[in-house]
Amino acid sequence: MDPEAFLDLANQVIKLKMYPYFDIAHSLLCALAVREDLGAGAQTFSRKHPLSCWLSTMLVIFAGGMVVNGLLGEPMLAPLKNTPQLVIGTVTWYLVFYTPFDVGYKVAKFLPVKVAASAMKEIYRAKKVYDGVSHAAKLYPNAYVIMIIVGTLKGNGAGFTKLIERLIRGAWTPTAMETMQPSFYTKASLVASIIFVLDKKTDLISAPHALVYFGIVIFFVYFKVRYFSRFLVN
Amino acid sequence: MDPEAFLDLANQVIKLKMYPYFDIAHSLLCALAVREDLGAGAQTFSRKHPLSCWLSTMLVIFAGGMVVNGLLGEPMLAPLKNTPQLVIGTVTWYLVFYTPFDVGYKVAKFLPVKVAASAMKEIYRAKKVYDGVSHAAKLYPNAYVIMIIVGTLKGNGAGFTKLIERLIRGAWTPTAMETMQPSFYTKASLVASIIFVLDKKTDLISAPHALVYFGIVIFFVYFKVRYFSRFLVN
Amino acid sequence: MDPEAFLDLANQVIKLKMYPYFDIAHSLLCALAVREDLGAGAQTFSRKHPLSCWLSTMLVIFAGGMVVNGLLGEPMLAPLKNTPQLVIGTVTWYLVFYTPFDVGYKVAKFLPVKVAASAMKEIYRAKKVYDGVSHAAKLYPNAYVIMIIVGTLKGNGAGFTKLIERLIRGAWTPTAMETMQPSFYTKASLVASIIFVLDKKTDLISAPHALVYFGIVIFFVYFKVRYFSRFLVN
Repeated sequence: MDPEAFLDLANQVIKLKMYPYFDIAHSLLCALAVREDLGAGAQTFSRKHPLSCWLSTMLVIFAGGMVVNGLLGEPMLAPLKNTPQLVIGTVTWYLVFYTPFDVGYKVAKFLPVKVAASAMKEIYRAKKVYDGVSHAAKLYPNAYVIMIIVGTLKGNGAGFTKLIERLIRGAWTPTAMETMQPSFYTKASLVASIIFVLDKKTDLISAPHALVYFGIVIFFVYFKVRYFSRFLVN
Repeated sequence: MDPEAFLDLANQVIKLKMYPYFDIAHSLLCALAVREDLGAGAQTFSRKHPLSCWLSTMLVIFAGGMVVNGLLGEPMLAPLKNTPQLVIGTVTWYLVFYTPFDVGYKVAKFLPVKVAASAMKEIYRAKKVYDGVSHAAKLYPNAYVIMIIVGTLKGNGAGFTKLIERLIRGAWTPTAMETMQPSFYTKASLVASIIFVLDKKTDLISAPHALVYFGIVIFFVYFKVRYFSRFLVN
Repeated sequence: MDPEAFLDLANQVIKLKMYPYFDIAHSLLCALAVREDLGAGAQTFSRKHPLSCWLSTMLVIFAGGMVVNGLLGEPMLAPLKNTPQLVIGTVTWYLVFYTPFDVGYKVAKFLPVKVAASAMKEIYRAKKVYDGVSHAAKLYPNAYVIMIIVGTLKGNGAGFTKLIERLIRGAWTPTAMETMQPSFYTKASLVASIIFVLDKKTDLISAPHALVYFGIVIFFVYFKVRYFSRFLVN
């Protein structure tokens, strides 16, 4: 691949529109995660406590934005004003939990669907980390630590709201704090945030901005696909 | 009752001043709720931990405003700047917990007093739901879900802060989340919020605004009085 | 000591610069407190969970500012934009937890060092209470209760975030709420806040402002030193 075409591709990735396909992939995986977290009794739970089920799914979907808004003194509910995203979230939640014969869940769990959605979600994650770092950099141009914290939380907000999400569903697991055993997503988002900050604020990284961004995207997607390849080999 | 007189009455209800009588009724029931929640050891607790007792009672009284402010990026402490309401809250708290021979508590528990206060509190609740929906509609004119969430939280904020309220008193009951078994008040506030949103934002409800509001008030008060009638019959 | 020289001294205390020595003393004691709270396994914990250890130490150091910002609708992360303070905090955290042969911890625990740092921290505390009351008075000129709450939280914020601080370290101790057994620091900060409010807002205190402030400082430092004297006598 010649370098110019590569840079072109990178520039296209940076301008990729997230709505609606990437939002759908993200919502789908969030709803799946809630369902897996509920375990065997997920369906019974969703019938008995629909409000709790819906609220906790929305919290997972909008976790990054809500947490960051809360920490930056902006309205925590504001992400919900994005009506199309809320509709997508509610529809996917419905499909994963309430379709007849559990068709929605089975389709979502089907490996090719899940791999595609996961790859898309990683592209989405890279964008959110980047947006978080940029947003914090606008508010506090010299506070590198705030930029890194905001970027990380945007990248894996749901990890940090897991306790509240489960509390909404009546379960309390204080030892499951993300800070104790940071997941791969948190570590990856942290690394990506640091790279974005270095790229934005220092001259240490000489590569064009689009390439840095593209590199992060590839890094996220690569590890996600490699993770799934384990299931394919066996 | 002729329709014009009825509409007149509705218009008067909508302009009803909440201060001070409705504030007193609300505070009284909040202090009573804290005392009931403490169970048999309430008096001992109030002597041993006055700070914790006062703080948790204030949290119950101002729950709706505080939670909503927190979620909308406004100062959570702001409701406390309403000095008259704070004084009313503190005086009723004192009367319910510390009067000699427990006179204050006994008077507050006396059924006619409690029924009157409860009916007034429901009128208060309807106003708070309405104010919540209007406030959210000003901030986010197209975000119906935010309006409904804010209205519901204003109507039954104390239900959603119960965990924190108890935590202030050193008790932790994670399974008592309002989202798991929503109380009648939460459901009623939710329905009222939806009706207010439909009335404000759509043409689905053709009745005059004052009548819609009055209808909600009657619905709230009716169910509350019916609830008490059970005690009267037996 | 003649009165004029005394007033001069008071005026100098009020203008005392906190950066960097008082910040160092404060950070050192916060890191020590985290280490003591972790008990015997502190060193192992700090190796296994550095992120959790660092985050919880920062929360203790910046507790007052973060909690107050959260309650006043200002950005909770904003205190972290103070880069020099963040660097001091991180360096002291490193010294207390990770120096070879545990030199840093041993030096910090050495009684004369600890007494000096503690005395400085009390001067720092008095300033923070005063700043808190002043800040709240600017926002809500007539809300005495808000001023007192903000002053108290600025004076002993770490007491009120203890639950979250421990949660970050994977421990949950709901009965350790500061409101249940308020520590001496909370009570002292509460008293100081009330005195500052009376001095600022009423004519009840006729002494010059500098003297009131100096009196609070002496009161804080005196009790702290008296506390340590117990160890010296035996």
